Amino acid sequence: MFSTAELGRTIPKSEYRQREPLLRQELLEVQAKLFEDREFPVILLCAGVDGAGKGETVNLLNGWMDPRLLATRAYDKPSDEERGRPEYWRFWRDLPPKGRIGLFLYAWYASPLHGRIHGKDSAAVFDERLARCHAFEEALADDGTLIIKFWLHLSKAVQKKHFKKLEKDPLTSWRVTQQDWDHWNRYEEVEAAAERMIQRTSTGRAPWNIVEAADPAYRSLTIGTTIRDAIRKHFDEFAARRKLREEMALQQHATRQAEHAAESASVNGHASDKGGQSTPLTVLSGLDMTLQLPKRDYRAQLKECQARLNHLHREALKQKLSTILLFEGPDAAGKGGAIRRITAALDARYYEVIPIAAPTDEERAQHYLWRFWRHLSRAGRITIFDRSWYGRVLVERIEGFAAEDEWRRAYAEINEFEEQLTEHGIVLVKYWIHITRDEQLERFKAREKTPYKRWKLTGEDWRNREKWNAYAVAVNDIIEHNSTHNAPWTIVEGNDKCYARIKVVRTLCEQLESAINGSKKH
Amino acid sequence: MFSTAELGRTIPKSEYRQREPLLRQELLEVQAKLFEDREFPVILLCAGVDGAGKGETVNLLNGWMDPRLLATRAYDKPSDEERGRPEYWRFWRDLPPKGRIGLFLYAWYASPLHGRIHGKDSAAVFDERLARCHAFEEALADDGTLIIKFWLHLSKAVQKKHFKKLEKDPLTSWRVTQQDWDHWNRYEEVEAAAERMIQRTSTGRAPWNIVEAADPAYRSLTIGTTIRDAIRKHFDEFAARRKLREEMALQQHATRQAEHAAESASVNGHASDKGGQSTPLTVLSGLDMTLQLPKRDYRAQLKECQARLNHLHREALKQKLSTILLFEGPDAAGKGGAIRRITAALDARYYEVIPIAAPTDEERAQHYLWRFWRHLSRAGRITIFDRSWYGRVLVERIEGFAAEDEWRRAYAEINEFEEQLTEHGIVLVKYWIHITRDEQLERFKAREKTPYKRWKLTGEDWRNREKWNAYAVAVNDIIEHNSTHNAPWTIVEGNDKCYARIKVVRTLCEQLESAINGSKKH
Repeated sequence: MFSTAELGRTIPKSEYRQREPLLRQELLEVQAKLFEDREFPVILLCAGVDGAGKGETVNLLNGWMDPRLLATRAYDKPSDEERGRPEYWRFWRDLPPKGRIGLFLYAWYASPLHGRIHGKDSAAVFDERLARCHAFEEALADDGTLIIKFWLHLSKAVQKKHFKKLEKDPLTSWRVTQQDWDHWNRYEEVEAAAERMIQRTSTGRAPWNIVEAADPAYRSLTIGTTIRDAIRKHFDEFAARRKLREEMALQQHATRQAEHAAESASVNGHASDKGGQSTPLTVLSGLDMTLQLPKRDYRAQLKECQARLNHLHREALKQKLSTILLFEGPDAAGKGGAIRRITAALDARYYEVIPIAAPTDEERAQHYLWRFWRHLSRAGRITIFDRSWYGRVLVERIEGFAAEDEWRRAYAEINEFEEQLTEHGIVLVKYWIHITRDEQLERFKAREKTPYKRWKLTGEDWRNREKWNAYAVAVNDIIEHNSTHNAPWTIVEGNDKCYARIKVVRTLCEQLESAINGSKKH
Repeated sequence: MFSTAELGRTIPKSEYRQREPLLRQELLEVQAKLFEDREFPVILLCAGVDGAGKGETVNLLNGWMDPRLLATRAYDKPSDEERGRPEYWRFWRDLPPKGRIGLFLYAWYASPLHGRIHGKDSAAVFDERLARCHAFEEALADDGTLIIKFWLHLSKAVQKKHFKKLEKDPLTSWRVTQQDWDHWNRYEEVEAAAERMIQRTSTGRAPWNIVEAADPAYRSLTIGTTIRDAIRKHFDEFAARRKLREEMALQQHATRQAEHAAESASVNGHASDKGGQSTPLTVLSGLDMTLQLPKRDYRAQLKECQARLNHLHREALKQKLSTILLFEGPDAAGKGGAIRRITAALDARYYEVIPIAAPTDEERAQHYLWRFWRHLSRAGRITIFDRSWYGRVLVERIEGFAAEDEWRRAYAEINEFEEQLTEHGIVLVKYWIHITRDEQLERFKAREKTPYKRWKLTGEDWRNREKWNAYAVAVNDIIEHNSTHNAPWTIVEGNDKCYARIKVVRTLCEQLESAINGSKKH
């Protein structure tokens, strides 16, 4: 694999001096357009053998390009806050927003490579971890991110010569560390691991470029032109992609309008809010919506559940077991009330409620999962999402904010995301609190009548109500795709608030308990 | 102080039931207006004796108000990332943006109170720490934040009765902890510390409200009405303040125009770019701008300095000594070039360059110092600000983005901020790289000629150049106010780039060295 990077290619000084100014100018031009359009971010990832010039490349690119639009990211061992969250938390946090470039050193490849080279991880584990790198890059590429990866290569002989030369001068000897020599001694193992890594993660949309790095002039110009060409090509592809998406959106809109017309015709003569639309058969159809709990029992059981929850909460904290809850459901289903019954039993230092509304502009400039990653709390804490990443396949799908290919892709992306949470040991509890359409109408009317509840009711709630069936279908799709063994959905029959709240708190207790017992066994 | 909160005030159930709905509605109304206007944030701070109902108050306010616009913040012991930064980092991070409410439990008062009650801190240290709470709140209040603080009080006898009652029921006994009884045993000490705290930090703009907490109905209505009235009053004050500010801005504008006219008249007949404006006498006037370093010496010295810097950098990392560098200076002074000479000697994992440009909307919704707090890096790291918080008293002052009272106040706010950095042990190095007006013109012209440097030159640079003297005066004011013993400014004569870069790197080495030696002695 690397023999093509040991050909001894060099570029004479005179040629370099001639080509460099033009290349710099072109790089600046693509960078300026990138920032002006703000349509996608660029990820440059740089890895390679020691002494091949990764640090020099960082300095070079920061010198050639506008450093204000280029953020360099290199990673040391994780801090305790980082260890307390899934491995990729810190990479998500550092992703460049649209229009900017992130220059990553090793990043998500560091730990898999290290684990393999130092014999910690088996070949199978290595492959698994590479698959995660791949999935991460795919998710970003799907979202439009341009990813360019460089592996800087030196032959074993050239590497040795290079180290020796640096070591001879006391002023540059600091550049060569003991680790460099350690790696040199196991050059073959490093090479084998790198080869496997490149094989597994060099894809059409996130390719590895192997760069012969012995001659700085050749290396610099190669990296520079690769970046220039890749960004230029991405401009064109992105424009084509945007056009395609616009066309699809138009088409979808036409389809929706036709559906709407057909629907209106079929309900002709019915009162529009009286079940005129025939309800589609979904997982929600089979629920027993008459389930209820008398108020007196409710009070006693709530007290009991909350005492149990508090006990489990403290135990989880001791074990550094994190919990993530998310609540979805129709408007007025009682999500807020259920959340408050949980938080009443918790210590305010250890939980956080994250209401999900429209994204801020920092969030809009990122992948849609970014704003959920940023809110993951530390080990032992409870994070409660009031609405969640499922918005992608609910409101964004139904309102057309996400294109069809985007929301269809989201099911897999969400599974990947949730897998990272549960693999990290996080207890993930997902609630769909359901109410019937009639019950919702009752609650809307009650809200209108109670002055201090009126704020909860907006025009949007009434509009959403019109899309009841579309939501039912969307929920059905969610349960089908995203109710996994590790992260099952809990559907709560919510027509009776007392019944629903007890089911919510009790489910949480059960899942916490089994996680605590599970982790005790280990 | 607390006797007025032991009067046994209660509110009958019937009265509560009557008043509660109206109060909830009013609270929702002020909250809605707050969010609509997005003019200022609200901080509610809740503290008090154990069992007085802090947790219940959190639940109450989350139930009464729109919880999506109300974030609750309670704090446990700091994580290692938090310990690696100044104490207030986590509070800054959690401040509510304009239009929203932050409900803080103890927060910045927790550690001072704890330190005093458990005998760790002397009365003098306690007072000092309270002064910091006070300064923090003043800075926020100056920026428009409304701050309302509650101390929930119970007499010793009532507290005991309350604990006993909770303990009797196995389902509520979890609410009483050993720490609660410990605090009860030292009730008098807690009371004395609280009294001192309230004395020292109850100001007109961030008053403490002592609430008799024995009766939940009385407590709830008192807190609710206090919040409602305070926000309403702040609406009026804020409108008045805005009006005043607008008038002042108009006046300032008129003054500036008059000055400009006078200036134009006086330079009548001179070429506009030839020093026509008489240069004001400032700290910059006395610089020897002819200082230079031959290129050959430069190369040798740079290599030496970088080797020394790398050594010190690794030593600082070992000692977890953080460094913050900031660079200011006229356009084209060579800030970027100097920064790259530093980073070339550093390990990319341990430094970050933060270019300061226009704030994002998340940043704009916060106090102007918030975006600098958010970028402080962990212990042992180097953070390099390319432009900085001094923008407040440079560009924002000169362009009128900050009103006069705002930028005048900023000198003290910046000193307070930098004091927190240096007190935490951070090495703070502040560079003003200076060039003469003629040299700047040369460099602008050169940039225009070199294609790959042209991007560095914008219309704004030419416009800023017109304000040369205003900047000189502003820099003079900065040196006067903000060159403190702990955080001195380094003025770099920048006409010769070689000389300037060596001075920059060498100054950093010296300051790092003295900090390392200083901390070794301890």
